[in-house]
Amino acid sequence: MTNWINGIYSDGTGEFVSSPSPYLGETVTVRLRLLTDAPARHVYLRSFHNGIQRFREMRKAETAHGLAYYEAPLTVNEPRVHYHFCVVADGAVLYYTQRGVTPYVPDNTYDFTLLTGYVQPAWVKDAVFYQIFPERFCNGDPSNDVRTGEYSVDGRPCLHRDWSDPVLDYNAGRCMDFYGGDLRGIREKLPYLKKLGVTALYLNPIFEAPSVHKYDCVDYFHVDPHLGGDAALAELTAAAHEMGMRVILDISINHTGSDHRWFNKDGVFFPKSEGAYNNPMSPERGYYFFGEGNAYHGWFGNARLPTLNYTSEALRDRIYRAPDSVLRKWLKPPYSIDGWRFDVADTFARHDDTQLAHELWPEIRRAIRRENPQAYILAEDWGDCAEYLRGDEWDSPMNYFGCARVIREFLGQGDIHIQMPAMKAAHRRMTGEDVEARVTQHLAKLPWVIQENQFNLIDSHDAPRLHNDRSLPESAFRAALIFQFLLPGAASIYYGDEAEIGGTLGTNEGCRWPMPWDKDIEGTEHYRLCHTLCALKSERPALRRGGFRFLCAHGPAFAMARFTGEESFVAVLSNSPDPVALDLPLSLIGAAMPEDGTDVFGTLVDFTHAPGGAILTLPPHAALLFDCPAV
Amino acid sequence: MTNWINGIYSDGTGEFVSSPSPYLGETVTVRLRLLTDAPARHVYLRSFHNGIQRFREMRKAETAHGLAYYEAPLTVNEPRVHYHFCVVADGAVLYYTQRGVTPYVPDNTYDFTLLTGYVQPAWVKDAVFYQIFPERFCNGDPSNDVRTGEYSVDGRPCLHRDWSDPVLDYNAGRCMDFYGGDLRGIREKLPYLKKLGVTALYLNPIFEAPSVHKYDCVDYFHVDPHLGGDAALAELTAAAHEMGMRVILDISINHTGSDHRWFNKDGVFFPKSEGAYNNPMSPERGYYFFGEGNAYHGWFGNARLPTLNYTSEALRDRIYRAPDSVLRKWLKPPYSIDGWRFDVADTFARHDDTQLAHELWPEIRRAIRRENPQAYILAEDWGDCAEYLRGDEWDSPMNYFGCARVIREFLGQGDIHIQMPAMKAAHRRMTGEDVEARVTQHLAKLPWVIQENQFNLIDSHDAPRLHNDRSLPESAFRAALIFQFLLPGAASIYYGDEAEIGGTLGTNEGCRWPMPWDKDIEGTEHYRLCHTLCALKSERPALRRGGFRFLCAHGPAFAMARFTGEESFVAVLSNSPDPVALDLPLSLIGAAMPEDGTDVFGTLVDFTHAPGGAILTLPPHAALLFDCPAV
Repeated sequence: MTNWINGIYSDGTGEFVSSPSPYLGETVTVRLRLLTDAPARHVYLRSFHNGIQRFREMRKAETAHGLAYYEAPLTVNEPRVHYHFCVVADGAVLYYTQRGVTPYVPDNTYDFTLLTGYVQPAWVKDAVFYQIFPERFCNGDPSNDVRTGEYSVDGRPCLHRDWSDPVLDYNAGRCMDFYGGDLRGIREKLPYLKKLGVTALYLNPIFEAPSVHKYDCVDYFHVDPHLGGDAALAELTAAAHEMGMRVILDISINHTGSDHRWFNKDGVFFPKSEGAYNNPMSPERGYYFFGEGNAYHGWFGNARLPTLNYTSEALRDRIYRAPDSVLRKWLKPPYSIDGWRFDVADTFARHDDTQLAHELWPEIRRAIRRENPQAYILAEDWGDCAEYLRGDEWDSPMNYFGCARVIREFLGQGDIHIQMPAMKAAHRRMTGEDVEARVTQHLAKLPWVIQENQFNLIDSHDAPRLHNDRSLPESAFRAALIFQFLLPGAASIYYGDEAEIGGTLGTNEGCRWPMPWDKDIEGTEHYRLCHTLCALKSERPALRRGGFRFLCAHGPAFAMARFTGEESFVAVLSNSPDPVALDLPLSLIGAAMPEDGTDVFGTLVDFTHAPGGAILTLPPHAALLFDCPAV
Repeated sequence: MTNWINGIYSDGTGEFVSSPSPYLGETVTVRLRLLTDAPARHVYLRSFHNGIQRFREMRKAETAHGLAYYEAPLTVNEPRVHYHFCVVADGAVLYYTQRGVTPYVPDNTYDFTLLTGYVQPAWVKDAVFYQIFPERFCNGDPSNDVRTGEYSVDGRPCLHRDWSDPVLDYNAGRCMDFYGGDLRGIREKLPYLKKLGVTALYLNPIFEAPSVHKYDCVDYFHVDPHLGGDAALAELTAAAHEMGMRVILDISINHTGSDHRWFNKDGVFFPKSEGAYNNPMSPERGYYFFGEGNAYHGWFGNARLPTLNYTSEALRDRIYRAPDSVLRKWLKPPYSIDGWRFDVADTFARHDDTQLAHELWPEIRRAIRRENPQAYILAEDWGDCAEYLRGDEWDSPMNYFGCARVIREFLGQGDIHIQMPAMKAAHRRMTGEDVEARVTQHLAKLPWVIQENQFNLIDSHDAPRLHNDRSLPESAFRAALIFQFLLPGAASIYYGDEAEIGGTLGTNEGCRWPMPWDKDIEGTEHYRLCHTLCALKSERPALRRGGFRFLCAHGPAFAMARFTGEESFVAVLSNSPDPVALDLPLSLIGAAMPEDGTDVFGTLVDFTHAPGGAILTLPPHAALLFDCPAV
C-alpha cells in the first residue's frame, strides 16, 4: 500500500502558489496536497514575518483525483519569504520542505521560497536549447574560411581541414584545425532546427579569436570574420527571432586571450607597442594581474589566457557598466541577443584574498537586465553553486551538478567531474536513491522560480558525448534524454547528438566533430527521440510548467514525474542488466498507468495494477517515459 | 560488528586542523581518521581554489588507539575555505562532510569550513555561564529597593514584595512585582558561583527601565538605580574579573520602552515636551516608525515597546557607531563587559521591505570588536539562524535550536518553540535518530570555530524550568544537563536550576522566582550535578576543546561523545520507560567502557564487552555520562 506520508506535496507552480512571483506586500494563497485518505488531523503553514516564526492552520479547499488540497494565505512582506508545512497525525508530526518529509523540526535550508525582486526569464522553462560549437556546425560561406597558414599562434599555423576529415584528438596547446563552420551556416539550418523542435540556440564563443574554440578572445567587440563578422550575427538573430527562436552567446569575461588587444603579448594581431603586456603605461595594464618581471596570472596557470582583474573600475566599465560595454552592446539591436552564457563563471573575479564574485554578479545582472529584462544569465559551474542562485546573480548554471553528472554516473560512467582514477576504479554502481538525493539536494535549495530556469544538459563542448561511450548500454542516451527533459527547466541538445555524430572520449576535441550533414539524420533513432521529446515539451504543459517529484527509488531503479493537476508524465529508469520489478505509486500524483502499458516511444511494458499504482516489470536498462492519465 | 563507515571522522579542532584559525595564505595540515582495519584504498581531501574543485590524496600519518590518521596540506588562499573528504573502497566511494557520510557527491552546505577573518572569543568554549535575572537573584542593598507606589506605568503601580512571597503567574502587561535583587547582591554571591564552577555571568537587562524584566528600557546609558546604578556595575565586573569570571549584558536594541527618553509617550520619567512621540520635531523622531495620526510600530504589536528604525543614521551612531554609543560605552572601562546578548535579534532591523539585518550586524560586530576583540556576540534566536553565523555577524545564538528545544522534546515536553496545541497533542515520541538529525543539521552548517561558541542552554528567563515539569521522568534534568555540557560550546546554568528553585509552567513569571537562599542549596541533587559537570569541564580538555560526534542512535536511545585523542566522555540517554539494550561502538573514538561500569555520577550500569565496544543495558530514562579510557 502506498504510504500516505509520501503523498505530502507542494511546489512553487501556480497550482500551489497563487502568484509564484508576487509583488512585495501581496497576499498569496499557498497550497499543500495529501492523499484523500491521509490520516492528517491538522495541516499548518509555517512561515516567518520579519524573522518571527508563524504557524497558520490550512483548510481543506478541494479534492481531485484522490488528492486533497489544503490552503492558507501568506503575506509576502519581505523581498524573500520562506515557508514549510507541518502535518499532524496521531503520534506523528511531519515537517515538509523542498527536501522532503522529516519527523523532526527541519532547518531552513530547504524551505520553499518566494522572491519578489526576481524577474524570471519566463521563456526558459519552455525552451529546448540547441548548443552549437560554431566552427563545427555548418559552413554557410566558404569565402570566409580560415586558410591554412593564414596566421600562426605559438609557432603553430592554422590548418584548413575538409569537413569530412576526422578530428585529431589532442588537447595540448590551442586547437588550430579549422573546418569552416560559420554563422551563415547556422542561419541556413534554422529550418532544420525548427523542425527538430528547438526553440533557442546557445552558441559557443564567436568573438574574434585565433583558436577554434574562441575562448582566447582578442576582441570582444567583434564577431570573428571567419564566422562571418558582426553582420552575420545580426542576420542570424533576426532570422531566429523571426522564427520564434532565442539566441544566447557564450563569453569568457574571466580571461582574455594573450593576443587580446588589451594584453597583446606577442603582437600577432595588433601592433606590439599596444597593450598591457608590452606597454606598462597602457590604460589596460590594470585590467590584468601583473607581478614582478612582467609575470602575470593566467586562468588555471595558462599563459595564453591572462586573467582579468576586476579591482579595475575601468575594466568593469568596459565589460558591463558602460552603455557601449561588451555585455550591453550585444544585447542591443541589431544583435539583440537573448542572454549570456558565462564561461568559467565559478572562478570569475575570485583571486585569493580578492573575492569579488558576489559583488560583481549582482552588478552584471543589473547591467544585463537593463538592456533586456528577459535576458537569460547562464553560468558555467559544475558543482553546487546555490550561493549564486538566490535571485540576484545567475538564473542558472550549466546544470551538470543536478543533471549531467548524476544521470551519467547512474548510467555507468562514474562522475564526469571527478577525475581521480581511483574513484573511478571503485566501480561503484549508483542507486536510484542516490539519484534522488543528488537531484534533490540541488533543486531543494533553490526557489522554484529558479528551479524552473535550470539549463539541463547531458553533453557539451566540455563533456565527451555520452552516446559515443560504447561501454554503456544501448538505452543510455534515451535514458539521459528522458531524465533531462523531465527535470524542471530548459532541456538542451548538444549539436549532433540528434544525428548520432561520431567522436571520441577522453578529450574535448572528441566532442567537437563536424556535424555529419551527409547522413540521413532525420532517419536516426536519436533524431526520433529528440523530436518526440521536443514535441511533447512544446505541446504538454506538464513538461514545461508542471510540478516535479521523485515517485520512488529502489536500488537500480527510480521513477520521477512532471505533472499538472490534470496530466502526468512519469519517467522510469533502471541501471540493472537484469529485469527488475518496480512498485510505482502513481496515486501520489493522482495518475494511473496508460491502459496499454506503452510508453511515449512505443515501448510496451508488463505491469499489473496494484493498490496505489502499478507493479512494473522493467526490462534491463529500462528507459521509459509514460504519459499517464488521471485517475 | 562496528561498521567502518561510521568510523570516518574529522573536525575543526587542533587534532584535525593544524591551525584552526589560519591566516590568509597559510598552508595547514588537514587530517581524517578511520578505523585501522577500514578497507579504504584511497582517501582524498576535496577543496576549492578560487571556485575550482581540487582533490588531493591524503597519506597515512599515524595510528593510535585503533584509529589511523590520514593527512594532506591545504592552502587557505581565501578568507573562507571549505572542504570535505572522499574515501574510496572496493565498490564504494564515500563522501564525508560535517553532516556525515553519503554514498553520493554531496552539495557544499555541510562542508568543513576554515575562516581567516574571524576572531573567535576563545574563552567561550571553556565557559560555564550562569544566567541571572537580576531583580530576582539577590538583594545586596535594600536601600535601593523599589518602593510600592514609587511610580506607576499604565496606571499600575510598582509593588515591593517580600523575597519569600510566591511570584504571581501573569504575563499580561508589565511585570511590576519587585523583590529587590540588585548588582551588589550578585557581587556578594560571586564566591558562591565560583565554588559552583561558573566562569561567566550573563545578566538579563540592567539598564534603567520601569519593569522587572527591563526590556522596556528608558535609558540605555545608565544602569537602573534600583539595581545599584552604574557604579554597581563597575564594581561587579571588577570583582568578577578579579575572580577570573566574565560578564556579558543583555540588551534590546530592537526596541525601547515607550517611556524611553527618546520616545517618552506618557511623560512618566521625562518632561512630556521631550521625545519623539509628543514632539514630532525632536531629533529622535526618525529613530522610530511613525505613521499617520502618530501611530507607530511596536515589537510584536506591543505599544509599550516601540521598534527602532535603523534607516536612521543618527540612531546607528548612537547605538553602536560613536565612541560614546551605547554598545561601546559599556565595553570600555570602568565597566569593561565581555560581550553582549542581544534580545530578539532574530527580528532586529527587519521591517518588511526594509531588511537591514545583514547590513547592520557586520557593522555592529566591528564596533564591538574595536572595543574588545574578545567580546562575545550572543543573539536571541530560537530557530535556524546559520545565515548569521558565517563569521561576520554573531558568535552564537541562544542555542535553543540545537540544544534546549531538542533535548526538551526528547525528554517528553514537545517542542517548546512550537505552541500549536494540535502539534503538542500528537504526542509524538522523539527518537534518538531525530536528536542526532536535529543537532547535526544545526552544527553541520557552521564552521567549527563557531560551533565552539555555541551558547548551550536548557532553561532561561523565557523557557519554563524543565525540572518544574512534573510530567517528566525524574532523570530529565540530569539528562538535559549532560546533553548540554557535552555539546561543543559553552554550557550555561539558569540561576536557581542548581538550587531546585520552584516555579510554575506556562508563563514567563514562573521561571523568574526569587533565588531560594534559605535552602541548603549545596545539599541538593541539582547542585551536585552542576558542580560535578562544571568541575569536569574545567579539568578535562575533552569537554572544552574536544571533538564531538554522535556514536549511535536507535529508537529511544542515543549516545554522543566529546573526545581528544587521549580522553573521551560518552553520554548515553534514553527516553524509554523500560530498560533497553544499546550497542555502544566505542571503538569509533578509540575508547572503552570504564571497567567498573560506573558513570561520572556514580551510576552503575550493566554491560558486556562486545567487538567494537560494549552492549549496555540501560535503565529506564537513562541519563549517563561515562569517562571512558582509551583502548
